[in-house]
Amino acid sequence: MNSVKNYFLSLLVVLTFFSCKEQQNDLSETAAEVAEVITDPLPSWNEGPSKSAIVAFVEKVTTQGSPSFVPEEDRIATFDNDGTLWSEQPMYFQLAFAIDRVKAMAADHPEWSDEQPFKALLEGDMEAVMEAGEAGLIKLVMASHTGMTGDEFETSVLDWIKTAKHPKTNQPYSSMVYQPMLELLDYLRDNGFATFIVSGGGIDFMRPWAEGVYGIPSHQIVGSSVKTKFDYNNGNPVLRKLPEINFVDDKEGKPVGIDQHIGKKPIFAAGNSDGDLQMLQYTASNPQGAFMLYVHHTDSEREWAYDRDSHIGRLDKGLDQAMADGWTVVDMAKEWKYIYPFDL
Amino acid sequence: MNSVKNYFLSLLVVLTFFSCKEQQNDLSETAAEVAEVITDPLPSWNEGPSKSAIVAFVEKVTTQGSPSFVPEEDRIATFDNDGTLWSEQPMYFQLAFAIDRVKAMAADHPEWSDEQPFKALLEGDMEAVMEAGEAGLIKLVMASHTGMTGDEFETSVLDWIKTAKHPKTNQPYSSMVYQPMLELLDYLRDNGFATFIVSGGGIDFMRPWAEGVYGIPSHQIVGSSVKTKFDYNNGNPVLRKLPEINFVDDKEGKPVGIDQHIGKKPIFAAGNSDGDLQMLQYTASNPQGAFMLYVHHTDSEREWAYDRDSHIGRLDKGLDQAMADGWTVVDMAKEWKYIYPFDL
Repeated sequence: MNSVKNYFLSLLVVLTFFSCKEQQNDLSETAAEVAEVITDPLPSWNEGPSKSAIVAFVEKVTTQGSPSFVPEEDRIATFDNDGTLWSEQPMYFQLAFAIDRVKAMAADHPEWSDEQPFKALLEGDMEAVMEAGEAGLIKLVMASHTGMTGDEFETSVLDWIKTAKHPKTNQPYSSMVYQPMLELLDYLRDNGFATFIVSGGGIDFMRPWAEGVYGIPSHQIVGSSVKTKFDYNNGNPVLRKLPEINFVDDKEGKPVGIDQHIGKKPIFAAGNSDGDLQMLQYTASNPQGAFMLYVHHTDSEREWAYDRDSHIGRLDKGLDQAMADGWTVVDMAKEWKYIYPFDL
Repeated sequence: MNSVKNYFLSLLVVLTFFSCKEQQNDLSETAAEVAEVITDPLPSWNEGPSKSAIVAFVEKVTTQGSPSFVPEEDRIATFDNDGTLWSEQPMYFQLAFAIDRVKAMAADHPEWSDEQPFKALLEGDMEAVMEAGEAGLIKLVMASHTGMTGDEFETSVLDWIKTAKHPKTNQPYSSMVYQPMLELLDYLRDNGFATFIVSGGGIDFMRPWAEGVYGIPSHQIVGSSVKTKFDYNNGNPVLRKLPEINFVDDKEGKPVGIDQHIGKKPIFAAGNSDGDLQMLQYTASNPQGAFMLYVHHTDSEREWAYDRDSHIGRLDKGLDQAMADGWTVVDMAKEWKYIYPFDL
């Protein structure tokens, strides 16, 4: 918002308000809307380089007649989820879900007491679980995410997201979303952007709750997936989730997922790790111009601090390219007034 | 629109119009919008069972407080494309594109003069092309649709859609869309539905032109696809289209494609062939209630007449189930006042 625009908007409110008393109800609504636009759209962002750069970009691409103007149908904004829209420590929240599910399902699976990594998990030996490596984790995910219908899986996700609590904050996981990023999503949508999630996380794990939490409809959520099969189930059509990977929406997979689901190159992309680098590179190649943002986890007190050496959300090559190419790197500790909505 | 609602809408126009002269411009717009709603939203549909059923369904699910009310975020409508939104005779239009592309590319592929089905195609022997069967057709599609970047393919589609003419009507293919279905798409969107294409046709073949023709954004277009690979191409990120099938969005694939791309069960689905049957069955299983529509090609004069014995767009099992379950079957000859926009 520049000051000339604010001035005219204020003038409009005043003029409209006094011009016609019969329509006071309508006008009160208009006034409220305009007031909302005039106030800071990113109140949880401290004044600083990231906030300035975001606002300057949005004004540039939305200003009719500007050489950088981008028509509304091309204002595609893609966001990673883990570590970009919500926290991802001490483990990806979807893994916490998988572990809780396996524990809940254990009574129906006596065979797990002899099978790794289930045995270790049920005995609470998380080190041994981690020693089982990627293959072990895939076993946990498959056991908790497949062999059921899509509707059954959705119910299990909703049950968990309503009840499970994060070990550090004791808050529901869906409360551990970043307040500044919620404001950024709103700000972009208010300016005609379509906002998408493009996450390495499971598409079916995010969709049940992300629509309400982020205001992003299910068809604008892209993620990793297992194969599903259409089946009749005694005349009642269902989709069965099979224990087989369909798509991995990470690294090189992100531009592919964007192409499959969106079919347009973003003009705005946000991530926090090397897993988002290809999405940001792909976005940067948009001939209409583009904005690339990395959330840098620098806040060991209010959140977590990690980057180049982290096993979760490693940001190494991406940080180098961001600095070399002048992408926006958000210093969470310095630039975010609040982290979570419950900090407000 | 029921008459009570119309009465109140008219009253609203009159009241608003006289209440405040200063805002006449705004009010003229409001009056125009209301007038548009009051007039027939489906003018190219003759009064008949299909039109009545569509309007009754839309009123039912959009009436607040009605037991059949469906909130806006769940008003998902999916449409097949070939034979449902545009014609598909004497061959799928995408096949006409593939053939034209192979001819245009032949100079760079001397090896095709000895290789079927290319040889037959270049000699104009369409019978021999068809004898090569599905394997032959896949060869043609792969040659014309892969081995290039997504941007290059998009350009080739746009060039073709602008210049190629249909052999019967001599009209551009994108003009051979059904006027009544364009009105139906608008009508649903005006009532808060999100409209999607779910087609066996290629997702990358539809997206370049379908957004403008149908008013459906690229991320709401679902179709069959080849695999793509992210590649750097000397520092300029591109997606390369590989000669390998990624997903077939037909028959059992349609509910799977809906689940992957939309993540919600439709409450409205329209098709014209047995390839759409599973999508309609899946939609019919929506506990919120749903509307299933088949376009029946009964018009040998203005379009084409075919169903149970056709190789293209066969409608056999689907017709049986539609009749048994009371789905809406549109008799194109009787129920459509106009077929194409150029008939108006």
